[in-house]
Amino acid sequence: MYQLYYHPGNASLAPHAVLEEIGAEYELVFVDRAHDQHKSAPYLKLNPSGRIPVLIDGDLALFETAAICLHLADRHPEAGLAPAPGSTARAHFYKWLMYLATTLQTELITYFYPERLADDAAGAAQVKRHAEERVGGMLDIIEAELAGNGNGGAFLAGDAYSLADIYLMMLCRWTRGMARPAAARPHLARHIDQVAARPAIRRSFAAEGIEPPYFTLPGSAAK
Amino acid sequence: MYQLYYHPGNASLAPHAVLEEIGAEYELVFVDRAHDQHKSAPYLKLNPSGRIPVLIDGDLALFETAAICLHLADRHPEAGLAPAPGSTARAHFYKWLMYLATTLQTELITYFYPERLADDAAGAAQVKRHAEERVGGMLDIIEAELAGNGNGGAFLAGDAYSLADIYLMMLCRWTRGMARPAAARPHLARHIDQVAARPAIRRSFAAEGIEPPYFTLPGSAAK
Ligand SMILES: N[C@@H](CCC(=O)N[C@@H](CS)C(=O)NCC(=O)O)C(=O)O
Ligand SMILES: N[C@@H](CCC(=O)N[C@@H](CS)C(=O)NCC(=O)O)C(=O)O
Repeated sequence: MYQLYYHPGNASLAPHAVLEEIGAEYELVFVDRAHDQHKSAPYLKLNPSGRIPVLIDGDLALFETAAICLHLADRHPEAGLAPAPGSTARAHFYKWLMYLATTLQTELITYFYPERLADDAAGAAQVKRHAEERVGGMLDIIEAELAGNGNGGAFLAGDAYSLADIYLMMLCRWTRGMARPAAARPHLARHIDQVAARPAIRRSFAAEGIEPPYFTLPGSAAK
Repeated sequence: MYQLYYHPGNASLAPHAVLEEIGAEYELVFVDRAHDQHKSAPYLKLNPSGRIPVLIDGDLALFETAAICLHLADRHPEAGLAPAPGSTARAHFYKWLMYLATTLQTELITYFYPERLADDAAGAAQVKRHAEERVGGMLDIIEAELAGNGNGGAFLAGDAYSLADIYLMMLCRWTRGMARPAAARPHLARHIDQVAARPAIRRSFAAEGIEPPYFTLPGSAAK
């Protein structure tokens, strides 16, 4: 029985959806961000970086979203959420998963926490504006890939659905308040709608209280 | 025969050292950063994000440093640079590799390219200062792990040397100009000296023209 420390819509959503796709037995543990539970001593024992999510698998306390997703896929190969290690398909999968985790996700984190890189509100606003613009460029790269410029498959890492698609969908949801959210791009819009329509994904949304509109906000310029 | 697009001391150093550890046949392809070769049309075909490194493996053009390292380890399991997929050791390995790639490396990128998040030189200086401070906190987390607070092994991901140790060593080198570089911390200093002493690592340094002092600069406060 796994335990996933989560907060609704946070980076925990990807492993949550992966657990649903696998059909594994798990329990959600709510992290109370309003009371900074993720900076408390017991939580820091699980994850010294004080971030969400953490997965408990027996004696193992695992942090880093991509690490959790990779571990779950490797433990449950029958779920087919990642190509077999050593294959060329696995390399394409690593490439896009790493692009999401090291590049798009981290720029989104800068967008959400600009004050961490600034002395004052004006500095933070500057950082946020640049981060939003850079996220846009990264989404354009993914849009081109989905349009068939690169690997050319129906899914991010090729012909087969993988956890990279789930990860992408989660990050696209984070852009919903931007002037030009991910969903303003036609291939990304098709892709994330397709992922979000899957029963396993719906169940994870429902459990976290995530409701439509999933990928745009009324104020955004999208669609 | 692999080809690795590299620039001395850049993120390509980790896959380069991994290729040396494996003993694989490969060729280095120099990327001329002074002429922005990594932003040229032919390079963007290999890596649309215009960054270094890229690995060519037959028809496959692979980008993202962590993806390249994982792929090489999976293709050459006999080299023992990553624990077997599905094992608990693999989970620890993923955890720290992802921490390095998504957290420490990306904050270092902010430190090296602060102008990307700012309107002017004053804004960039602000970003750089905060990034340096944040890198310090991340190095402290790794120092505590190496001191045995976490997993407690001699290496980052446990008892066995892995490519996560190489990756860490590379990132620590990038901190050599900071007021408090990684090597100012005793466990990190021991760890990276041990990695840098390996013959395969020495060969990659020599091929890239990397010379001592590897982990501190005369101006830094370290050691
Ligand atoms: N690289 C980490 C980043 C995780 C992360 O930043 N999570 C956010 C929630 S989406 C968080 O914990 N924020 C609170 C904080 O940084 O204090 C991962 O992928 O697990
Ligand atoms: N997440 C990427 C980042 C790579 C990266 O930023 N590489 C640097 C060199 S160390 C680079 O290409 N910089 C030039 C640029 O960003 O324009 C990876 O790990 O491959």
